[in-house]
Amino acid sequence: MKNFKIKVAYDGSRYKGWQVQKSTKDTIQGKIESVLEKLACHPVDVIGSGRTDAGVHAKGQIANFHMEDNFSSEYLLTYLNEYLPEDIAVLSVEEAEERFHSRYHAVEKTYQYRIHTAKIPNVFERRYLYTFTEPLQIDKMRQAAEYLTGTKDFTSFCGNKHMKKSAVRSVYKITIEEKEEEIRITYSGNGFLQNMIRIMTGTLLEVGCGRKDPEDIEEILSAKNREKAGYTAPAQGLTLLEVKY
Amino acid sequence: MKNFKIKVAYDGSRYKGWQVQKSTKDTIQGKIESVLEKLACHPVDVIGSGRTDAGVHAKGQIANFHMEDNFSSEYLLTYLNEYLPEDIAVLSVEEAEERFHSRYHAVEKTYQYRIHTAKIPNVFERRYLYTFTEPLQIDKMRQAAEYLTGTKDFTSFCGNKHMKKSAVRSVYKITIEEKEEEIRITYSGNGFLQNMIRIMTGTLLEVGCGRKDPEDIEEILSAKNREKAGYTAPAQGLTLLEVKY
Repeated sequence: MKNFKIKVAYDGSRYKGWQVQKSTKDTIQGKIESVLEKLACHPVDVIGSGRTDAGVHAKGQIANFHMEDNFSSEYLLTYLNEYLPEDIAVLSVEEAEERFHSRYHAVEKTYQYRIHTAKIPNVFERRYLYTFTEPLQIDKMRQAAEYLTGTKDFTSFCGNKHMKKSAVRSVYKITIEEKEEEIRITYSGNGFLQNMIRIMTGTLLEVGCGRKDPEDIEEILSAKNREKAGYTAPAQGLTLLEVKY
Repeated sequence: MKNFKIKVAYDGSRYKGWQVQKSTKDTIQGKIESVLEKLACHPVDVIGSGRTDAGVHAKGQIANFHMEDNFSSEYLLTYLNEYLPEDIAVLSVEEAEERFHSRYHAVEKTYQYRIHTAKIPNVFERRYLYTFTEPLQIDKMRQAAEYLTGTKDFTSFCGNKHMKKSAVRSVYKITIEEKEEEIRITYSGNGFLQNMIRIMTGTLLEVGCGRKDPEDIEEILSAKNREKAGYTAPAQGLTLLEVKY
């Protein structure tokens, strides 16, 4: 058996997230597994670097799966793109070491959240943007982002109330770029909890429009209580850009 | 009454074109007229610079309509964007001269056709691209484009078989840009016949992959017969960029 590593891009708008669930196969993982099962004539488990929520997009999700030796990377690339729906594309396929595991071996992930700040809608990219037209104080958002950077317990920024494992994560960098009609917040870290980036984004937006102060972040973090943080920004603005190994 | 000139952007994917038809209101003009009718409490005729086919997009369609004096441009801009569907945006509203007519007074239109040439799909812009992965000889396409430039009878490039008016149009410029995974063909002229740009694009693609020669264009034009030209490239790759007055 060969272990294949693939890089996947998807418009997550119409999917229930990356991961196959008991209730639905309508997930990106499910679509890829269906195509591979037809090719291999047996079920194939596709392991993603991590889940993305329903509606979240990816430009560089990484996954791996095992297939018989007679399949080549080139053939799999063509076959997958031929049979996957038009909103999922496999950007590359390569043979990985036998022990490579896309989730366990990931060391850094980068996500981007795009906020459309103009009152006039962007009809062409609307599926990948969250519109927020209140005036924002970017300098305050940058100050708040500083407090979110580092190795910390992010319980207050976790959407899963029944989380039993450690909520300590390292956020390496948060950058906030201002464009003409858009603000892009890019987050990189060793891993993120469920909804963590969307809650960080909602909190930064609340700071940006004055409903919270940058200094409040310290208190929010130490409270270890989801209620203290800001709202969960919608999934559609979020894209997984890159996973490093 | 005031005469308002508006600039409109739309993702045409789910519409039956710009123009209201007897059989359907599911057109861009229809959507704008519905919103204005609710505001004005009477039907409002919206005149576009020209029709766009079902599935064709626009970044700068121009239209005009008459409304009572008590409406301001600013108010209309906000109101229209509030009530139009998310795939139609009004980019600007301005008061025009009483006699301004968006169709009669248009002097130049620019359209762009985007061809995705890579085998790996572009999931994020798929609705605005036509995928064509055969190798293309761009230099030959540029030669053919020269033959299509100028003031000519474009009967062979007209999709309407029952066209009774003159098919003479002036094509000012056709530029073909090569990008990494894409070819963009930009057409400007004083006006275009039904499906004309899509038929020119299909013909240029046939030249690009060797099924026609650049010199064939002369013969195609002089035949004044739609059958002689190439196929009609799909609507989704086409966007109306600009209308000049």
